[in-house]
Amino acid sequence: MSRVLVTGAGGFIGRHTLAPLLAAGFEVHALTSSDPPADAPAQVRWHRADLLAPGAAAALVGEVEPTHLLHMAWYTKPGAYWSALDNFDWLYASLQLLRAFGERGGRRAVIAGTCWEYAWEARTHCLEEAPRPAGEGADAQATSGAAPTSAPTGMRPATLYGAAKHALHVVAERWASQTGVELAWGRIFYTYGPHEHPARLVSAVARALVRGEEVPCTHGTQVRDYLYVAELGSAFAALLGSAVAGAVNMASGEPVRLADVVAAIATAAGHPELVRLGALAQRAGEPERLTADVRRLREEVGWSPSIGLAEGAASTVAWWRGALAAEEPATPALALAPEAAR
Amino acid sequence: MSRVLVTGAGGFIGRHTLAPLLAAGFEVHALTSSDPPADAPAQVRWHRADLLAPGAAAALVGEVEPTHLLHMAWYTKPGAYWSALDNFDWLYASLQLLRAFGERGGRRAVIAGTCWEYAWEARTHCLEEAPRPAGEGADAQATSGAAPTSAPTGMRPATLYGAAKHALHVVAERWASQTGVELAWGRIFYTYGPHEHPARLVSAVARALVRGEEVPCTHGTQVRDYLYVAELGSAFAALLGSAVAGAVNMASGEPVRLADVVAAIATAAGHPELVRLGALAQRAGEPERLTADVRRLREEVGWSPSIGLAEGAASTVAWWRGALAAEEPATPALALAPEAAR
Repeated sequence: MSRVLVTGAGGFIGRHTLAPLLAAGFEVHALTSSDPPADAPAQVRWHRADLLAPGAAAALVGEVEPTHLLHMAWYTKPGAYWSALDNFDWLYASLQLLRAFGERGGRRAVIAGTCWEYAWEARTHCLEEAPRPAGEGADAQATSGAAPTSAPTGMRPATLYGAAKHALHVVAERWASQTGVELAWGRIFYTYGPHEHPARLVSAVARALVRGEEVPCTHGTQVRDYLYVAELGSAFAALLGSAVAGAVNMASGEPVRLADVVAAIATAAGHPELVRLGALAQRAGEPERLTADVRRLREEVGWSPSIGLAEGAASTVAWWRGALAAEEPATPALALAPEAAR
Repeated sequence: MSRVLVTGAGGFIGRHTLAPLLAAGFEVHALTSSDPPADAPAQVRWHRADLLAPGAAAALVGEVEPTHLLHMAWYTKPGAYWSALDNFDWLYASLQLLRAFGERGGRRAVIAGTCWEYAWEARTHCLEEAPRPAGEGADAQATSGAAPTSAPTGMRPATLYGAAKHALHVVAERWASQTGVELAWGRIFYTYGPHEHPARLVSAVARALVRGEEVPCTHGTQVRDYLYVAELGSAFAALLGSAVAGAVNMASGEPVRLADVVAAIATAAGHPELVRLGALAQRAGEPERLTADVRRLREEVGWSPSIGLAEGAASTVAWWRGALAAEEPATPALALAPEAAR
């Protein structure tokens, strides 16, 4: 029996990993620091803990004894998480979790990384570094290995969030190599869908349009890789169920301009006339183009998306219609737990 | 007045930074977790704390209010520190120290890195990556900058120790960029001299030869960069006193075969006939050649060594003669504090 512990399981992305993990035959133990989502599958076994509390990870892992770990939890408060020093604490909490997982016999771990680990150039099409061959390093003869077919993108995070995630990967990869635990690192690009924090782009646009309000936007010429959140959850479940090691870009492989993302939401909401492109200045320092090479995800993990932008936008708008109808006139709006993944 | 806090100040390397820092005009506050060295300069103000204790760094920084930080402390138990999970704790403790330093108005920090952050190929001549231009990243327009004159060595640590140090650098560099603290990262290569742990190569050879015992060695064909420890202390003081940012190789720039290091010690001890080259198998996985490009240290920091291998070997042997005479018949042998740098 394979038993998986999912952290951040009540979060925006984590909650979408649960059904596919159950479908793949895992006994699913889900960790959250607040209440479990009301619509979670009934077979999921929920645990409540704060991974930042000393000893919390060890106690939880001792209780669950997972064979697999899917670590999605992190500090993700919009507007703050790029530069917050909480990233230090989540780096250490994640290492404590890995330590406990290894000590209790864990076999395979998948951790959520981010596209912001990559160096930002004006146009970055991100290719993962080659996975380290098993036993390479201090444990074995140094070999230079086969030359990669194209050059991996450099790692030079431009945010503290990206730096802390990259640092975790550097240490976790070496830890995995010396302990024999299998490790894959799923780099999340851009995602959207139900339950996303209302301050994030797609949520903010959908909420405003559902309410019939104007939406001031930038010109939206930046090109990104967007993946519908339920798809991302399914991709993480597939990665955990595979034997693929190393970094994997978790993305659609279908670059899109931000203006087209906004247009898809506007079409789904029936209010394209309320979008004001160019009303806001673009945030300085971000790359014009940040897209993903998805060959590892498609060819090695064997996963590809099935929900396109129009369908995902329609689901997102429909969900916000329901959520806004349900919350009126209550305030404040939806508040997601701070540890919710991304 | 510039006030420096030196961590690991009682350690093998840290103790040699104190006199040059005083000479450079710093008010020197030295942190150790055990007793201060008996031969430390009298003007040094000693503090005793365990940086792994929660709140210890913040309390110490609040008391000292340093303008400068020289962070040499780490877990360095020979035979264990390459793979010990204590590296997780030192990574986090170091981040907590930086956090406190920044919050109390600290201006410039220098942290001890290691040559083991670099990827191991069979022959690696290590060149530092270019420092990140001030403000690059999320805070400013992305620019690709000037092309480097030669390609920096890749970062792929082959030990958990190297991985944790590299992870610290990744996070610290980004933290420095967003807080405005100046940060330099001094990568230590190989060093030797008085007070080194008796289990390390040069100490073990010197102790055995002073006692007139045979010394079984490997063939010693590996090429490394060795720097006398007092020189390394002086180089760190020079780096702290400079305005150089980013990674700097702290090394002699004079590659030497291990066999020649052993020969220098044997000559100084007057017992070349007791060295048995080839009696031991070489440790698998280590590079044949691991040397340092020292242009940044020499040209930007403006520091170069003045003590060669013969002189350093003579000082080391003389020190061991005294130490062994003093310790007889006491057992156990010298035990250095585990937090002693390197």
